[in-house]
Amino acid sequence: MPAVVDDSGHARFSPPPVVRLRLDIGYDGTDFAGWATQAEQRTVAGVLDEALSTVFRAPVVVRAAGRTDTGVHATGQVAHVDIPASALPHIAPRVRGHLAYPRTGRIDPEFLPLVRRLARFLPTDIRVFGIARAPEGFDARFSALRRHYRYRLSVAPFGVAPELARYVTPWPRELDIDSVNAASRELLGLRDFAAFCRFRPGATTIREMQRLDWSREGDLITAHVTADAFCWNMVRSLVGALLAVGEGKRGAEWIAGLLDLTQRSSDFAAAPARGLTLVGVDYPPDDQLAARTLVTRDLRVAD
Amino acid sequence: MPAVVDDSGHARFSPPPVVRLRLDIGYDGTDFAGWATQAEQRTVAGVLDEALSTVFRAPVVVRAAGRTDTGVHATGQVAHVDIPASALPHIAPRVRGHLAYPRTGRIDPEFLPLVRRLARFLPTDIRVFGIARAPEGFDARFSALRRHYRYRLSVAPFGVAPELARYVTPWPRELDIDSVNAASRELLGLRDFAAFCRFRPGATTIREMQRLDWSREGDLITAHVTADAFCWNMVRSLVGALLAVGEGKRGAEWIAGLLDLTQRSSDFAAAPARGLTLVGVDYPPDDQLAARTLVTRDLRVAD
Repeated sequence: MPAVVDDSGHARFSPPPVVRLRLDIGYDGTDFAGWATQAEQRTVAGVLDEALSTVFRAPVVVRAAGRTDTGVHATGQVAHVDIPASALPHIAPRVRGHLAYPRTGRIDPEFLPLVRRLARFLPTDIRVFGIARAPEGFDARFSALRRHYRYRLSVAPFGVAPELARYVTPWPRELDIDSVNAASRELLGLRDFAAFCRFRPGATTIREMQRLDWSREGDLITAHVTADAFCWNMVRSLVGALLAVGEGKRGAEWIAGLLDLTQRSSDFAAAPARGLTLVGVDYPPDDQLAARTLVTRDLRVAD
Repeated sequence: MPAVVDDSGHARFSPPPVVRLRLDIGYDGTDFAGWATQAEQRTVAGVLDEALSTVFRAPVVVRAAGRTDTGVHATGQVAHVDIPASALPHIAPRVRGHLAYPRTGRIDPEFLPLVRRLARFLPTDIRVFGIARAPEGFDARFSALRRHYRYRLSVAPFGVAPELARYVTPWPRELDIDSVNAASRELLGLRDFAAFCRFRPGATTIREMQRLDWSREGDLITAHVTADAFCWNMVRSLVGALLAVGEGKRGAEWIAGLLDLTQRSSDFAAAPARGLTLVGVDYPPDDQLAARTLVTRDLRVAD
């Protein structure tokens, strides 16, 4: 580590230069105790940190846009890691000549060999789809503009088809999608979602709900939920409350009334984690990343 | 059991009348040792027999159109069971009035409550999608005209997306689909597939290959394979041989030459079970079922 001399004349050590990488990630949350690393638990971040530290040959800690809960899935999770710049040449040697692989998608060609190596180190229920150098100012969590979630239910009499069993909640009663959609519209816009959030001291429960609607294809019902950010358990709580409307137990006016509450409601149950998937995260253009990060860090709303 | 007197004047016991039911079934084969019941093994037929015997309140044995191998999946398996006619009234009481459930698909309305009950008794990796009274002469195995299989591979650098990890084989090298399709055309028609079949004394290895082609969507490659019947391991062997062509190790003329062999070839490996799914079974119109059953029983080709 190089020693430098600061303004006061004291020698200090500057941290080694790092390179920030953006990772695009998917996982089947069934067998994970959520995203965040916890001792003695199999978590997505824990498994990723271990595999990434092995291939980067340096201890790294991955930071995600959405710290999903136990059992929640992701097809469009975004994360970043900072790796020592000195580690870069041997993990991502410059690719010479023609790349045999025709569709690189979100993978920087220089990181293609690394994506292939990670695929062998990671269990099949986590995949790193792509790796790229992060643009200046990028923070997977604090730069995010919005998160997109999907919640799926099956009202088929047989339950859920086996290939979807890990991703779709069986629902044994019929649901009136028109009523659910009408009630969902009550929740759009900048609102206080305290009724749907676990209390955390000093944290705001105000969020901007940008999309909340439901579609049906045969027996499969899908809720599309997009907000700037979500508090803990919020999507499952929203879905749980709206299912009470879909079953005719509650009306849209009850949903609207929940927005007046200043604390978590116990009038409805959160929907099971199984049906929930983080499907995407949006970021602003590169030149607005740093500004966005400052705003969201300040508001402490990002999650 | 009623005693009757036969032509020779001896009293004998006639079997109780039975009702044959058709079941439409799907399963995730990952955690099963194949279809066929085996002692000490978790098999699809074993788990189904147990659940069906419970809900029918009589010991039943399920018979399938395609006795899939260990790890092979099904979205369109068809089976039949014979249940004592006396068991029918209490398992499928006549449904009175309006059915709340709007889309019955392959479910006879009278069996809708039974489909719901089975859904609770079965593990989530097997589903009985529908139950109906079988038409006269129907035998799930011997009446079948053809079986449709699908084999899926991913050539993505990251392997297989988690939600498909149980159903798609990761393939770490590029495949030339045009070559594979050209070689596949060599195998169409009535042919001796001995090179692709395990030897079974007295069993023919002649099959009619009705469809064998490959499509590609992004990194996902799918083989569509349809024949009147398949011998044990045949689809995986065909796919394994054709992958050698797709990788440029072999040519179409090698595939054509395999058809001249009179026994199983060891020149190629069968593709992994993971990628294989039985997607459908076709039957003739009801009035031709009995005739079809006679033909296939005689040929002993059905499988």
